[in-house]
Amino acid sequence: MSKERKLGRGVAIAGVGMSKFGAFPGQATRDLFVDAFQELRGTVDKGLDPDDIEALYIGNYSSDLFEKQGHTAPIMADWIGLTPRPATRIEDACASSGVALRQGLIAVASGLYDVVLVGGIEKMTDLPIAEVTDTLATAGDVLFEIPAGFTFPGFYAAMATAYMDRYGATPESLMRVGLKNHDNGALNPKAQFGSRISAIMESKKARAAQKGRPVPEWESEMAFLHDDRANPMIAWPLRLFDCSPVSDGAAAILLVSEAIARNFTDEPLYIIGSGQASDRALHDRPDLTTISSARVAGRQAYEMAGVTAQDIDVAEVHDCFTIAEIIATEDLGFFEPGQGHVAVEEGLTTRHGPHPINTSGGLKAKGHPVGASGAGQVVEVWKQMRGEAGERQVPKDVELALSHNVGGTGQTAVVHIYERR
Amino acid sequence: MSKERKLGRGVAIAGVGMSKFGAFPGQATRDLFVDAFQELRGTVDKGLDPDDIEALYIGNYSSDLFEKQGHTAPIMADWIGLTPRPATRIEDACASSGVALRQGLIAVASGLYDVVLVGGIEKMTDLPIAEVTDTLATAGDVLFEIPAGFTFPGFYAAMATAYMDRYGATPESLMRVGLKNHDNGALNPKAQFGSRISAIMESKKARAAQKGRPVPEWESEMAFLHDDRANPMIAWPLRLFDCSPVSDGAAAILLVSEAIARNFTDEPLYIIGSGQASDRALHDRPDLTTISSARVAGRQAYEMAGVTAQDIDVAEVHDCFTIAEIIATEDLGFFEPGQGHVAVEEGLTTRHGPHPINTSGGLKAKGHPVGASGAGQVVEVWKQMRGEAGERQVPKDVELALSHNVGGTGQTAVVHIYERR
Repeated sequence: MSKERKLGRGVAIAGVGMSKFGAFPGQATRDLFVDAFQELRGTVDKGLDPDDIEALYIGNYSSDLFEKQGHTAPIMADWIGLTPRPATRIEDACASSGVALRQGLIAVASGLYDVVLVGGIEKMTDLPIAEVTDTLATAGDVLFEIPAGFTFPGFYAAMATAYMDRYGATPESLMRVGLKNHDNGALNPKAQFGSRISAIMESKKARAAQKGRPVPEWESEMAFLHDDRANPMIAWPLRLFDCSPVSDGAAAILLVSEAIARNFTDEPLYIIGSGQASDRALHDRPDLTTISSARVAGRQAYEMAGVTAQDIDVAEVHDCFTIAEIIATEDLGFFEPGQGHVAVEEGLTTRHGPHPINTSGGLKAKGHPVGASGAGQVVEVWKQMRGEAGERQVPKDVELALSHNVGGTGQTAVVHIYERR
Repeated sequence: MSKERKLGRGVAIAGVGMSKFGAFPGQATRDLFVDAFQELRGTVDKGLDPDDIEALYIGNYSSDLFEKQGHTAPIMADWIGLTPRPATRIEDACASSGVALRQGLIAVASGLYDVVLVGGIEKMTDLPIAEVTDTLATAGDVLFEIPAGFTFPGFYAAMATAYMDRYGATPESLMRVGLKNHDNGALNPKAQFGSRISAIMESKKARAAQKGRPVPEWESEMAFLHDDRANPMIAWPLRLFDCSPVSDGAAAILLVSEAIARNFTDEPLYIIGSGQASDRALHDRPDLTTISSARVAGRQAYEMAGVTAQDIDVAEVHDCFTIAEIIATEDLGFFEPGQGHVAVEEGLTTRHGPHPINTSGGLKAKGHPVGASGAGQVVEVWKQMRGEAGERQVPKDVELALSHNVGGTGQTAVVHIYERR
């Protein structure tokens, strides 16, 4: 279908907020969402009266299985004082809050609402880790894939194996993604892992020395990452530091119609492109080296925005596993197929490179509370575009940014493009 | 907020379909959704090319807990051949597909899409009944209500008790709702329970006689409904025949922009009103005799449509329990507070009365596959408005209809108003 997809009217972001990402055993999802909303209120430069919020869209993967709590959206509305506003949960696995953002965008564009709050929430750490793995596996196809023994590290390991085979990438290519994202996450106070991998290595050495054990003689971060004890194999070729963590967290985004954006802030960001696509389950795809839904969603977003991949100044992409970031940078057109791993090896995607990717630390270091991750990406976009990212601020002026959020093995992908005017 | 809520452009319904509702142990959700979509295709008078469908919204309460399958929307898209179209799951407990309809409506109104498919799905009967009850209970507030021992019959029993105490209704008032809805369901080939309660009573007598047991001497349906063995108490005053069943089912609705509606059918229905609201959990409400989210959602829908309750010719309302129908008819303004039970007793809500309610059989007799129920209501609206309801067709001309779909104990309510032009 070649129809040009356009929204009825413009939509801007007027504020963002997120809880810290991490493991918070004493808190419920609703508590984390209150944290995110309170931070958001502080970012709306000219102030926000919560009574002006007309609807709430909540991205959440599975509070059903993680917390035995369904029907979460009205609870979130209640806890931040929005009752009786309509409250709707959106679920597309790990793309839930990226898709919630798109629904909020569509709702404002429809003319029905002028002010919409979009949230993302997930509380994963209350379950034993084996149950977390099983819960995440329900984002695969339970009739065809799970009985074959797949869980998510296995799915992405299959993609990594196919990619390495076709393009000559190595486990080191993947490790470079983790090193870069930890470098960024170390500068993000909200990140679950606020340490560079070198610092983690040094602290392990110090701990060994302190306990009188033999101190490991890792010569480099790469040696550390190749050590089976320091960085155990999860599903070949993916090791522990190739995997995003199990996380709790919440994030929130305030959407307003373009016409009233400057009532809230003198520096709104405009959402100029949006794309969403679906794909078959992994077992039914001809090519594991690309996620076709991301290609389709990216193309839609670029067409709506009238820009190309080379115009994008910073991007937050869905690095649930290190291989996923490499594939994403190709699917989004930043690099040619097979060149994503070369780009990482050459440092093109660092904060100071020409294509900064995941300056927040990405899902890898910032954390991956699955239903909150898409909304969390927008928090970083906001900071980078407004020059508020502190030590991790990219050196160049950020006029265009992109976020890319994937559900499951790519049965869903959603891409947004943001402009500062 | 007194702002008038209007959509950017008009939206019509061009086709509907549903699977049979019931218990289908050999089928997965995706199979039932294929059934619903195939029936829908047959109802689009001028034909439907599936390639024209631009997006899919799926209402589903908890395939997570019922089937251990998350991320259902792209699977549904795949199984009816829509990949790579965007596929989004909407969850608001038992209001999931009513809210999905609203999101589809908003999406077409936004100008982004011209043709959207809305679905509702649920597969509940694969779990043991105790687990079904526990799963449904997750639509309450698991921090405050479930630890106190509530499950859904208990929630609605609390409402029934409060209502009976305030307005002098009796258990017989509730039973009248079940009798009426079974009368209607007996004429609906898609209904889970296709029998009048009198027929169920007679068949129980016949079975006893056949087996040589003493034949019960029920003098009337009311005597049958008062018999603790025939109609056991579930949660006082709610007995078995006051409760909707556990069901499998799927339904689908084709939405198109008003401008192109007549490319699909000469008899489109127009959605002229839509309202959605949230409420606090039941434990935190001042009044159990009304569901305030339904009042708010109804008011929004009437205001958008520019009509009143007295203009509505037929309505499908959310009778998950018999008391819920009585309260709904008051919340929607068909009757004054406290008069809903009188209206049922006087037969005002039968097919031939002035306010036909749940001509489909309602959730009580048609079945209540929770995430599909809201979409299923629209199937009946379509049939009644087009004069295609067969033996259960109401005698009057149906120009305006309404559907009312509730999530949980009323933390969500969504109301739509339909017009035939």
